[in-house]
Amino acid sequence: MKIVLLILTWSLLSAFTFAAPKETLPNIIFIFADDLGYGDLSRFGAKDIATPNIDQLGKQGITFTEFYSASSICSPSRAALLTGRMPQRMGINGVFFPDSWLGMPPEEVTIAEVLKTKNYYTGMVGKWHLGHHHKFLPKQQGFDEYFGIPYSNDMDGVVYMRDNDVESMQVDQSLITQTYTQESLAFIEKNKHQPFFLYVSHNMPHTPIYASKAFLGSSKRGLYGDVIQELDWSVGQIVNKVEELGLLDNTLIIFSSDNGPWLAMKEFGGSAGGLREGKMYTFEGGMRVPTLAMWKGKIPAGKQYNNVVTQMDWFPTFAAITHATLNKNIPIDGEDISNVLTSNGTRNSTFVYFDNAKIDGYRSGDWKLKLPYQGYAGSHWKNAVAAHDLSLFNLKSDPAESINLASKYPKKVAKLQHEMLQQVKRLGELPANITVRQKADLSQVSKK
Amino acid sequence: MKIVLLILTWSLLSAFTFAAPKETLPNIIFIFADDLGYGDLSRFGAKDIATPNIDQLGKQGITFTEFYSASSICSPSRAALLTGRMPQRMGINGVFFPDSWLGMPPEEVTIAEVLKTKNYYTGMVGKWHLGHHHKFLPKQQGFDEYFGIPYSNDMDGVVYMRDNDVESMQVDQSLITQTYTQESLAFIEKNKHQPFFLYVSHNMPHTPIYASKAFLGSSKRGLYGDVIQELDWSVGQIVNKVEELGLLDNTLIIFSSDNGPWLAMKEFGGSAGGLREGKMYTFEGGMRVPTLAMWKGKIPAGKQYNNVVTQMDWFPTFAAITHATLNKNIPIDGEDISNVLTSNGTRNSTFVYFDNAKIDGYRSGDWKLKLPYQGYAGSHWKNAVAAHDLSLFNLKSDPAESINLASKYPKKVAKLQHEMLQQVKRLGELPANITVRQKADLSQVSKK
Repeated sequence: MKIVLLILTWSLLSAFTFAAPKETLPNIIFIFADDLGYGDLSRFGAKDIATPNIDQLGKQGITFTEFYSASSICSPSRAALLTGRMPQRMGINGVFFPDSWLGMPPEEVTIAEVLKTKNYYTGMVGKWHLGHHHKFLPKQQGFDEYFGIPYSNDMDGVVYMRDNDVESMQVDQSLITQTYTQESLAFIEKNKHQPFFLYVSHNMPHTPIYASKAFLGSSKRGLYGDVIQELDWSVGQIVNKVEELGLLDNTLIIFSSDNGPWLAMKEFGGSAGGLREGKMYTFEGGMRVPTLAMWKGKIPAGKQYNNVVTQMDWFPTFAAITHATLNKNIPIDGEDISNVLTSNGTRNSTFVYFDNAKIDGYRSGDWKLKLPYQGYAGSHWKNAVAAHDLSLFNLKSDPAESINLASKYPKKVAKLQHEMLQQVKRLGELPANITVRQKADLSQVSKK
Repeated sequence: MKIVLLILTWSLLSAFTFAAPKETLPNIIFIFADDLGYGDLSRFGAKDIATPNIDQLGKQGITFTEFYSASSICSPSRAALLTGRMPQRMGINGVFFPDSWLGMPPEEVTIAEVLKTKNYYTGMVGKWHLGHHHKFLPKQQGFDEYFGIPYSNDMDGVVYMRDNDVESMQVDQSLITQTYTQESLAFIEKNKHQPFFLYVSHNMPHTPIYASKAFLGSSKRGLYGDVIQELDWSVGQIVNKVEELGLLDNTLIIFSSDNGPWLAMKEFGGSAGGLREGKMYTFEGGMRVPTLAMWKGKIPAGKQYNNVVTQMDWFPTFAAITHATLNKNIPIDGEDISNVLTSNGTRNSTFVYFDNAKIDGYRSGDWKLKLPYQGYAGSHWKNAVAAHDLSLFNLKSDPAESINLASKYPKKVAKLQHEMLQQVKRLGELPANITVRQKADLSQVSKK
């Protein structure tokens, strides 16, 4: 009897001692819009576009009003999101084209690869744009599955890929958002019993813009508004699915954009909502993107954070909330903002602006230093911007960057300049640009 | 003693009976020029270009005066060469572009794969142009090694690949022919002790044309002639290397072109030497290519063959001379011409002309039937050609296809038409075109 009791006790003890407590690993859904402007959501002030579903993420969670992309253009922004690193560290200083042979170096560690170490099932739906040759595709970067268009929807050779292969060369662009939504819902349904990471990367509202029939004429902002409202519908579908499966209090859902609006597209491009300029520029309109995150029971409802956060922060943050271990030898430029999400934590309020490979500005707290610019005459794809001198802006009192205070506060300028150079030093020696287009010499013949 | 003798006898017998006689498998070197015209070699009548080394192949071997490419453009021609099959069977009805997602179907059996069954070491140097995504590359089509530019030298994204990877994005086009030559010589040297197959596929003289410094001004035909003379030098280097290694009497060396000259390039394009039209047309100038083959001791020196031979014939011919077994279930359109090479054999003198996916003409013996053509106004990349009715030409008395005899010989026309349709039937149901460029809808925005 005594022995039996002892064995029983020992068994109970071992059960408590040796079985590790079951970790509750949250699902993560990251939804990206392409070229969505700071002023394109009703939560961020849009009057002519209604985005109740996206707004709801902020109402039930957190709204970031000063959230920065790592770049004002597509490929570098995405590389930074997935690795937590400045794109310049990888030589990604422009966008990849259909004739590009390169992509984000396969040896870069993506957040999908990190989550795989915690047994997440990882999937991506949508625009990749980090190289479309075999070794650069999502499947080789930690994603268990992939479906989508591997680059921008205005590029030659638009196809749907499934994993590593072309699934269809017939892409009806008016159905892209619908298709991505269905793929996303199927992914969530399939993985309801295991922790999953889903990266939904819409091709919309990058021009050429398309909405499906049901959304045409649905907004007060023409086709562009219709497109955004369809994206909003898509977010609603995803949130509903998560709720329906009873996973809402264990799923972090984030909505963001890769860079500012493409203003040169005029009525087919978005709005920066009072910020200066848009895509392709390091003014706030190009770099600041509307971002919201919901995590029921973890992020307090209706929270607003009005200081620097960056697209690179998700990498260390996802690692932190999943207790994943990061390789200490790889420099990460993002910061863990899990305390910003779930408690009263704050983040270091500095940010370095790069214009492709070139350092272009620095923010610390309320202040932004912007290096001199030689001006751009304008073209059908990039807005004209006048030349400007070294500029100092107070982003709190002057978010539109209209008043240059550099001559008024020379000491502030000097201090920011010094800090900026320290930041650049921290990056070390940067690799050569890998996103330059290779051109054959076409001096004799134009095309064939 | 008796026993010992018996054993000895048995041993000797076994040696003779069971050890298969060592097959002497010939090395094969196939050298391709790109857009070289029928009139661009001195052996084929060129007065302003000197090609003594290429001519020598014919003087020491065989010269084909009526040798047809399977197509008047690049990719289909190459697909046919490598498989012995009409490119239409594979849906290759145009050329692949840097934004093409497709290529020659991996399940096609190439001559390299056939030669692998006979333990050949197989290598390719130069322009592939049958798809540049991983699964379409030479390494996946039977080649043990590959070095070269995977498509045309006027296309965006010109790179040197080594096997499946990009080796260099810095291609100095003036050194392409030199580089390919060095790679070829190294391949031959490395494989001198085993049967090898080397496919050397030059990017020259496809525009933009370049010669290295040493050849600039070397010809009487400007830069184009210089480029051809450098190719001729390259052929000389290869033949010399084979000779130096003592392999000349066991190596079949072939020189040919993928299609006729690109006449729209004017002084930068070649000459069809009296034949009508060039590249992109199914007149003789587009389809007939200068071809020579040397195989010391096997092909009688100075032989000339003045009737139909095609680029697709090499596939069954290489199989025949290496005693390789072909899969009987795969229809082959070429014919074994080993008897044409080495003895007094002849080949079936018919040929079917295709203009991309469309049947366009038929040759039988001296006669060529050509289907009506609606005409082309001309552009910077394709010559203008007037509309013409159904035409009948006698290629022996009128190689320039200048006299339409259709109304004079209606019975001949009817007979050829009937035979042509039988040939088309023989091809069976053809797959959809896989070489069409995919275009995004650029109605709203032109480029980015």
